[in-house]
Amino acid sequence: MKNQKLLNKALNLLPDLVETKVDAVQTVELYKNDNSIVIEQAVDYRKRVLKKGSRVCLDFGNHQVGYLTLNLNYRGSHPDAPVWLKLHFAENATELFEDGKSYQGWICSSWIEEEQLHVDVVPSQLRLPRRYAFRYVMIEVLDISSKFDLVVEDAFCTAVSSAKDQELSAFKAQNHKLAKMDQIACRTLHNCMQQVFEDGPKRDRRLWMGDLRIQALTNYETYNNNDMVKACLYLFAALPMEKGRMGACLFLSPEPEVDDTQMFDYSLFFINTLWDYYEATKDKETLQELWPVALRQIELAEEQLDEKMLVGDSDVLGWCFVDWNLNLNKQASAQGIFLYALSAAIRIAQVLGDVMTEEKLAELYCECRNAANLYLWDGEKQCYISGKERQVSVASQVWMILGEAIEDQAAVNLLRRVETISEAEKMVTPYMYHNYIAALLLVGEKKMALQKMEAYWGGMTDLGADTFWELYNPENPSESPYGGTIVNSYCHAWSCGPAYFLRKYFTADGSLKGEK
Amino acid sequence: MKNQKLLNKALNLLPDLVETKVDAVQTVELYKNDNSIVIEQAVDYRKRVLKKGSRVCLDFGNHQVGYLTLNLNYRGSHPDAPVWLKLHFAENATELFEDGKSYQGWICSSWIEEEQLHVDVVPSQLRLPRRYAFRYVMIEVLDISSKFDLVVEDAFCTAVSSAKDQELSAFKAQNHKLAKMDQIACRTLHNCMQQVFEDGPKRDRRLWMGDLRIQALTNYETYNNNDMVKACLYLFAALPMEKGRMGACLFLSPEPEVDDTQMFDYSLFFINTLWDYYEATKDKETLQELWPVALRQIELAEEQLDEKMLVGDSDVLGWCFVDWNLNLNKQASAQGIFLYALSAAIRIAQVLGDVMTEEKLAELYCECRNAANLYLWDGEKQCYISGKERQVSVASQVWMILGEAIEDQAAVNLLRRVETISEAEKMVTPYMYHNYIAALLLVGEKKMALQKMEAYWGGMTDLGADTFWELYNPENPSESPYGGTIVNSYCHAWSCGPAYFLRKYFTADGSLKGEK
Repeated sequence: MKNQKLLNKALNLLPDLVETKVDAVQTVELYKNDNSIVIEQAVDYRKRVLKKGSRVCLDFGNHQVGYLTLNLNYRGSHPDAPVWLKLHFAENATELFEDGKSYQGWICSSWIEEEQLHVDVVPSQLRLPRRYAFRYVMIEVLDISSKFDLVVEDAFCTAVSSAKDQELSAFKAQNHKLAKMDQIACRTLHNCMQQVFEDGPKRDRRLWMGDLRIQALTNYETYNNNDMVKACLYLFAALPMEKGRMGACLFLSPEPEVDDTQMFDYSLFFINTLWDYYEATKDKETLQELWPVALRQIELAEEQLDEKMLVGDSDVLGWCFVDWNLNLNKQASAQGIFLYALSAAIRIAQVLGDVMTEEKLAELYCECRNAANLYLWDGEKQCYISGKERQVSVASQVWMILGEAIEDQAAVNLLRRVETISEAEKMVTPYMYHNYIAALLLVGEKKMALQKMEAYWGGMTDLGADTFWELYNPENPSESPYGGTIVNSYCHAWSCGPAYFLRKYFTADGSLKGEK
Repeated sequence: MKNQKLLNKALNLLPDLVETKVDAVQTVELYKNDNSIVIEQAVDYRKRVLKKGSRVCLDFGNHQVGYLTLNLNYRGSHPDAPVWLKLHFAENATELFEDGKSYQGWICSSWIEEEQLHVDVVPSQLRLPRRYAFRYVMIEVLDISSKFDLVVEDAFCTAVSSAKDQELSAFKAQNHKLAKMDQIACRTLHNCMQQVFEDGPKRDRRLWMGDLRIQALTNYETYNNNDMVKACLYLFAALPMEKGRMGACLFLSPEPEVDDTQMFDYSLFFINTLWDYYEATKDKETLQELWPVALRQIELAEEQLDEKMLVGDSDVLGWCFVDWNLNLNKQASAQGIFLYALSAAIRIAQVLGDVMTEEKLAELYCECRNAANLYLWDGEKQCYISGKERQVSVASQVWMILGEAIEDQAAVNLLRRVETISEAEKMVTPYMYHNYIAALLLVGEKKMALQKMEAYWGGMTDLGADTFWELYNPENPSESPYGGTIVNSYCHAWSCGPAYFLRKYFTADGSLKGEK
């Protein structure tokens, strides 16, 4: 089912990786003091003589994605047996306090960045063949002959990214804290920019449509690697699932291939991502070529509408992503997302002069918008509800606003109101927070948007984040829905939005710039 | 202290490795029934679908030394996480019943042929970069995503050796059992013949003088790779320890270098190995060039003589190897070995026409021989004793005979007598057994030599050996002096002697052939 023509176009646009040599900047010792982790500078690793059981922790100063090289030497007699090493790479210091062996969560433990390996020849240069995402590396000597000790004479990372630091647009933030937040968000995007926009360089390292939308938006304000967005759009278009449905994510290796995961929202986001790309580049040729693929997603979503013009709810786990919240009913969010996608589709049809389609889409948009307000609005609670249990959630309100089912002051009031509804399902990921901030900005709640951003992403900043995380619960920072932070992704694409928001909507003098 | 001229000569003579593709011949299941291991054919590995916790054991039909390649594929959804594998290579099935984690012996556990590794891309060809010595490979899936299962579509070993099978001299044994013994001995030598004659391809993979002497002798009767012996002699000569002392072993990587282990006997064996080489090749040029190095070993050994012309005993552990028996006193063996080396040196001097040296060595030989018979012979026990405790051991008698301190019927009687002395320290390694067989053959006890060989190496054959072992105690076949058979070496150079003895001394018609 691959479209080879589109695939070739995509593959030709894939960026080269830039390699940067990064030295370990210090040797550290880590320990727990009550519940907080204390990181102290320790004797330089080059001066350590490592025996059986020795551990030494290298700090690379910032989050890195790349390949580790260790120059190994010895003291004592000529090495007469291999050296058996364990390496544990950690994006976040907290991972070093977990034991991979005891991890029992549902995400595959093969993602834990631990290796055991044998070095047959010393002195030698050990270049690990796998790519890791890390700031810290704990080196442990599992066993070594008593005839010699190991010395790590040099340790460096060959960091890789397709983002070029020198191409990062300048940005003057309102204050130091926001500058820091922007910097962390840029680093997050930078380290997710590999051959494609990966969701996370530690885990899953895949091109997901939901992450791509946010990465692309942030990219236009930062690294401006627009051909890379184009490549990803062509990849998705080239690799459809059955009936032309857009897959939720793609694999690049060993061959470009679509996953078998489909999600209502992620399929539709292709349309918005295509539109955003056009807005950023005015590349009408791409818009034209990929328009049929985009339109097909509308057709497929339409099939899921019931007679009331509502997106039919589903019991299938993950039929529509929205947020990592298993209690969340997705119906209202899906309705809002369909409106959001239809709105982008209408604008594409306008630009392409496809009047017939534009009219048809506009009619569909109105019907679905009306249905949303007729059947999913709870007059008593004064908010949108979702599913047959009439669940209230922040997500439902956010997506109805982004889909413009509700506008202006009514939308502002809605966002404020939902905060006061205690039973409303909360947001749990930076991904959903991103859409929430977007909704606040859309309805002009700029100050609140900044406050919320400072409280949420600023919370990670305060906890020492080098890059923004896949998951963050301000009430429980070490929470992991996977059964252990050791598999958490601490550099996750869908968290890079602050750089987009700050650069697009906020400047140093506080003025609103470049708003739609 | 390297002699670069000799080193260059050595390096130029090092052989190329021959690569042979060996497929896994069957899939097996192993279990214990009482104390014996049952190996049964199981469902072919290619037909197995491997999930988390699955184990599959490949049998390569014979002992192999080389590199494993696995062609991996999957069933189910596209792999969405790395596959985490554990591989355990085993020369002998018994190793598979030991757990590397619980090994607490004194030999470095880094020799255990276990790997944990992550495979990022499937389908893929996994070629492990390290060399292993094995017949069996247990593949265990430590973890895998629930979205797919692993399939091993092909498994093969790229076996390496510098011995060429087609150059193995033909040999017709007296019976099937001896033919089998010869075949196992040849395989043992074959798999130890790499760039140099290694002591064991699993562990330690080094060029040891004590092993080289036996390997070279066996090589002349089998693969006839005489340049390889020459290369090893030049390596030892090129890489002396201080004062020109011959090291006990050498390392090849990363640079040729001598170890800091010195042993009285191993230094002297250079002389015998040089003489044996000359006898096999008549290469007088090499004999001439290496003669000063050989002679230097005599001079250094002479320094260790006391006023009685006895090799001074020492409390230093391993000052003289002789055998892996910590109770063994080495003095008498060392005296015998000195005579054995002097005897070879005298013959070299004769060939080279170095009359002055020949006379001096002959005089020294007589003095040491007389001292042995005057001070180390116990008139009451009618055997040689060793050390101030006047210890009786098989080793002492064997080396006095090989050093020709005692000859003819007296020597025959001595070997028979020592068997009846219950407190005599026994032999514990095939290495010492080799010298015992040599002594029996030297004194004409051909039948007994064959019987002893059949009992000892035949015992390993009966236990299913593919190659002969580093250690074998007929009374406790699973004994390991290291604290676990998991680090035992089941293909060990010093055990390859049967091919030498059988081919040199025994033919199919039972006649004595080519005896010195």
